[in-house]
Amino acid sequence: MTNLEQLTSLTKRRGFIYPGSEIYGGLAGTFDYGPYGLALKNNVKKLWWQRFVQTREDMYGLDAAILMNKKVWEASGHASGFADPLADGTRFNTMFQTSIGVGETASTAYLRPETAQGMFVNFKNIVDSFHPKLPFGLAQIGKAFRNEIAPRDFIFRLRELEQMEIEYFVRPENWEEHFEHFRLQMHEWMKDIGLQADHVHELEVSAEDRAHYSKRTIDFEFDFPFGRKELYGLAYRTDYDLRAHQLDYQDEETKTKLVPHVIEPSFGIDRTILAILSDAYTEDELGGEPRTYLKLNSAVAPIKAAVFPLLKNKPDLVNKAREVYQNLKQQIPEIMFDDNGNIGKRYRRQDEIGTPHCLTIDFQTLEDNTVTIRHRDTGEQERIVMSEIANKLII
Amino acid sequence: MTNLEQLTSLTKRRGFIYPGSEIYGGLAGTFDYGPYGLALKNNVKKLWWQRFVQTREDMYGLDAAILMNKKVWEASGHASGFADPLADGTRFNTMFQTSIGVGETASTAYLRPETAQGMFVNFKNIVDSFHPKLPFGLAQIGKAFRNEIAPRDFIFRLRELEQMEIEYFVRPENWEEHFEHFRLQMHEWMKDIGLQADHVHELEVSAEDRAHYSKRTIDFEFDFPFGRKELYGLAYRTDYDLRAHQLDYQDEETKTKLVPHVIEPSFGIDRTILAILSDAYTEDELGGEPRTYLKLNSAVAPIKAAVFPLLKNKPDLVNKAREVYQNLKQQIPEIMFDDNGNIGKRYRRQDEIGTPHCLTIDFQTLEDNTVTIRHRDTGEQERIVMSEIANKLII
Repeated sequence: MTNLEQLTSLTKRRGFIYPGSEIYGGLAGTFDYGPYGLALKNNVKKLWWQRFVQTREDMYGLDAAILMNKKVWEASGHASGFADPLADGTRFNTMFQTSIGVGETASTAYLRPETAQGMFVNFKNIVDSFHPKLPFGLAQIGKAFRNEIAPRDFIFRLRELEQMEIEYFVRPENWEEHFEHFRLQMHEWMKDIGLQADHVHELEVSAEDRAHYSKRTIDFEFDFPFGRKELYGLAYRTDYDLRAHQLDYQDEETKTKLVPHVIEPSFGIDRTILAILSDAYTEDELGGEPRTYLKLNSAVAPIKAAVFPLLKNKPDLVNKAREVYQNLKQQIPEIMFDDNGNIGKRYRRQDEIGTPHCLTIDFQTLEDNTVTIRHRDTGEQERIVMSEIANKLII
Repeated sequence: MTNLEQLTSLTKRRGFIYPGSEIYGGLAGTFDYGPYGLALKNNVKKLWWQRFVQTREDMYGLDAAILMNKKVWEASGHASGFADPLADGTRFNTMFQTSIGVGETASTAYLRPETAQGMFVNFKNIVDSFHPKLPFGLAQIGKAFRNEIAPRDFIFRLRELEQMEIEYFVRPENWEEHFEHFRLQMHEWMKDIGLQADHVHELEVSAEDRAHYSKRTIDFEFDFPFGRKELYGLAYRTDYDLRAHQLDYQDEETKTKLVPHVIEPSFGIDRTILAILSDAYTEDELGGEPRTYLKLNSAVAPIKAAVFPLLKNKPDLVNKAREVYQNLKQQIPEIMFDDNGNIGKRYRRQDEIGTPHCLTIDFQTLEDNTVTIRHRDTGEQERIVMSEIANKLII
């Protein structure tokens, strides 16, 4: 089992994730993504958007504001209900509150605690602009804020988090088939990003533990370093949300109005990153020495390949390596050039950030246009001709 | 000159931009991006990231939290100084304030009013993880929040906005060359996204109007529908920021410590979208009838091409059109299928969202594998063979 402290330390040292506001003592429940963490996160978002939005014709992307009119939260039930039980038995609303405007005209507003409401309140806008037929979905990636009493477990329980969510609108009689569709899609998604299938567990949430309006909820739990915890959720929310906002849908087929029901697949991005990193974190022995590496699949890895000149003080090698690097970068932007330290150190550095392949340009390259490609997981090296590189890198 | 009301109306009707929290009476200074607005925005972000981060070796991407420790804002001067003069002469801090935690342990926090400080407070983290040599830059895309007294002019002056910013760290003696580099880069960028060069004006900000720490600032003003206003800024911030946070840099070349100076190119995303849309909005006459279209360049257009069957009740045509659509979508994800209404209506709809090309599959297609390609700006149509389509679309 991956050790959370070691993982946290590696991600800070290697530029994935830093504690928020760190030089001022930090701010509990916030983290800053460094260059590699951001690249990993952007890869996750891109893959999610491709699977759930871009390759489908029934999905409409949205990016709603974080600040919303407080009436949204009164209608949704959050203003009264979005509360955590405190240790002493009192309850405490976990929405962050702020004040908009100045003086007598100032009004209370909340930072959204979930992206979902940003989609429900735009239901009518989407229907008016696009006239979609049922079933159809709205999809959004964005930040949400929760004043957690006890943020903890690295980026697992945060006060500032990011979500990828879908609100999928269906005819009431068809909810089960769409629920099943998304259940399977969520498993496919977890395969895409390289999570180990035996670390994922479906939990059928019992009626007592579900939100009062939900007729069925599945939690996708994951074996995190600190135990089995919720990673994603899939909920059948009935017609609760659209009724709460007094919204309905004119069915052009039957010429009647109806209130569509909602299936909601919900994905926390930070938890996704943590699951990916904790499954990828690996310690083994290579060439008789212990090493640590991130076994990231190429689709999510921040750097797809690194290019090295064997020696940094030989201009011929350095120039050739830079030429190879520049050419590759045209096809695959996430390519890195590294000439710092000896080759062994460069390999270990790339191992720690999860780079699947390293390419070394040596004296033989200058003669026959071959390079050494080194595979991260096995440490094995092979010589290939230059023209084969791009094919080798696309896994 | 583009009429702001007409532009606002088109962007709402066609699914680009909706007023925030609209069904609850709105929330001044907030807007929600619909499917096409989001696609346009994502294109802008992707192009910016490519130009300023991905294709360079001196840039480090970051994604820092929006909630920051209040000490950050005390050090930066924002807690006392980030204020707008009110009409009655009193001053009012425009940072949104909230409270983190609960009860006696609760503390004040602010939503960041700019992304810049998220980069300065990570300066040391980046240096420790990556050991970059001067000059180097940090780059970030993210939201910022300002409690503007009078949000106005559509998405020009917002309370919730998004920025693309760079903090570029240089040796003090070289600031002028880097300032000039970014000045030229910003012009190149505006060309990338299709802004008309004669609508962009550099304003050399006078010493009285500059921030007290800045030795030089250029505002890039743009001819918006409501007049010439600030679009972007480029500031030489001296060593003010790093000194404020008590940060310095160990120079490995000279083995001495120094405080790098900062060049800051700053880009508001929402203003970028507004500039693009207002330059693209065009009314003309086509085939003797008035029309409205968005003259977006292909790089930013939400939909690159639409595929139509000539008639929707002919299965042969529909199947062929869907086949063409599916094949194209493998190469270019931003392809749309449309069989609603007659061809004329479909053209006008695509014109209004700025789709550069429409492809129509007709009876001749079934015989000789040619399609009609229609060019948005001229309305001209030509027949091309299927295999040429992808080349025609990549401008």
